[in-house]
Amino acid sequence: MTVSCTWIAVDWGTTHLRAWAMSASGSILAEASSADGMGTLDRAGFGPALDRLCADWDTVPVIACGMVGSRQGWAEAPYATVPCAPLTGPFATVSSDRFTVQIIPGLKQPTPADVMRGEETQIAGFLAQNPNWDGVICLPGTHTKWVHISADEVVSFQTCMTGDLFAAISGHTVLRHSCAEGWDDAGFAQGLDDALSRPERLAARLFSLRAESLLHDLQQPQARARLSGLLIGAELAATKPYWLGQQVAVIGAGGLAHLYVTALATQGVSATQVNAERTTLAGLTAAYHLWKDTL
Amino acid sequence: MTVSCTWIAVDWGTTHLRAWAMSASGSILAEASSADGMGTLDRAGFGPALDRLCADWDTVPVIACGMVGSRQGWAEAPYATVPCAPLTGPFATVSSDRFTVQIIPGLKQPTPADVMRGEETQIAGFLAQNPNWDGVICLPGTHTKWVHISADEVVSFQTCMTGDLFAAISGHTVLRHSCAEGWDDAGFAQGLDDALSRPERLAARLFSLRAESLLHDLQQPQARARLSGLLIGAELAATKPYWLGQQVAVIGAGGLAHLYVTALATQGVSATQVNAERTTLAGLTAAYHLWKDTL
Repeated sequence: MTVSCTWIAVDWGTTHLRAWAMSASGSILAEASSADGMGTLDRAGFGPALDRLCADWDTVPVIACGMVGSRQGWAEAPYATVPCAPLTGPFATVSSDRFTVQIIPGLKQPTPADVMRGEETQIAGFLAQNPNWDGVICLPGTHTKWVHISADEVVSFQTCMTGDLFAAISGHTVLRHSCAEGWDDAGFAQGLDDALSRPERLAARLFSLRAESLLHDLQQPQARARLSGLLIGAELAATKPYWLGQQVAVIGAGGLAHLYVTALATQGVSATQVNAERTTLAGLTAAYHLWKDTL
Repeated sequence: MTVSCTWIAVDWGTTHLRAWAMSASGSILAEASSADGMGTLDRAGFGPALDRLCADWDTVPVIACGMVGSRQGWAEAPYATVPCAPLTGPFATVSSDRFTVQIIPGLKQPTPADVMRGEETQIAGFLAQNPNWDGVICLPGTHTKWVHISADEVVSFQTCMTGDLFAAISGHTVLRHSCAEGWDDAGFAQGLDDALSRPERLAARLFSLRAESLLHDLQQPQARARLSGLLIGAELAATKPYWLGQQVAVIGAGGLAHLYVTALATQGVSATQVNAERTTLAGLTAAYHLWKDTL
């Protein structure tokens, strides 16, 4: 059965491909996803992957965000330079057998050097839902972004690869024997406090997780949560100029975003938590209207 | 041809097995090594591995140090507790078909929790060669040790898993695309200075290596050396109570030990560099005499 729709919203990252069939009024008519992320495709594979996923949907305009627009993606959408609005033209245009796709450019900051791809669309979605909002947006993930917003523009941003570090340290160092699985809130709180109160001591804290498991029978859930607290604490110490005394919104509904909200609360920052998928869709919708209005 | 010797010195770590046939006066009569480290052996494999390596050597007492004495090793030699001399009894005794082996215990520190195995023998060797030496010994490696020595005892020590972190971050995060190979002294110096001058900003420095490679064509040798400088700088920031204003000896002849000496020099600390293999042998020799004298 064919899905009749006006346009298709696509979030295409390194490990996933998600699509929504949208009505003219912004309702979701159908959705689909696959594991055809950028990391698994060569350049010729993107078009067929999209055509497969949306085989039963109308042939309508497609708006896509994420790593699909990187140099290793389907077509490079060169970065816009901050300070700028999160959505700027021109989009990169590319075609599959069935669809013409507009790819949203990421953002770059020359100094300190930084880049984002995909988060700019969530930022645009958040600002569409919260007009005239000034403050700092935190987007937790493998590479967490801290983004300073003023007058509907991205003024500056900072990436911390905390999720990437956590996976590498808990999976590929001696701590893999001590931090393999489980969770413990008190362990997280302790790691967070250790790192925030003495951030310069971080390098000396990590091996103690191993030593305490050998000497004092520290359990894996406690050790794993403390490692997470140490790394998020180190991130908060490094990004203090972003969040201190600011209005903060954390985009993400899951457990990781909740950890950031909890961590910020210990520092007296009451952050708002926002659903990530709705925010992404709001951003893709804003991009669709921007593209349509400039036709 | 059989090698005639008085005793055999063995350094048996996670990834290597090294043996030296020794004369009564302490000369090296023969040496041998293999890849039969603790990590590749089950408990029944240690004896045959030693017998194979020393097949042509006399059946004489063997003194061994390293991970061979851990819980996952040949026989557990329970940790001695600091403060104590680096070599203390009792040794763990175990036998192969041909040899009786004395295994040197490691050291533990209950608070802050820390452990070492193998380094205590190098420390004993250094002190045998430098009587009445007070100061701090740095033993660079996968898990670098900082050891406070006073009155021939280990007073306290601190492990930083900097080598382990470097391998995990350069091999198993997004930085693997930017830090795969090469070296650049200026990059090391920059990373070191960044981390030492603002250690609390470490979490924000790492992703910039990736962003600078994307935006400013930062080359792999520079990025790799800067990552090393950042991590060793973070270690020096964390261990400042150990080395500040102290007499420091770095045990190790290789490039890694030289990096620590270079890094300490930027902080006004003129560290002495000591050959690791000779120091290990001096420690095993001291252990042999300690064992022989208590027979």
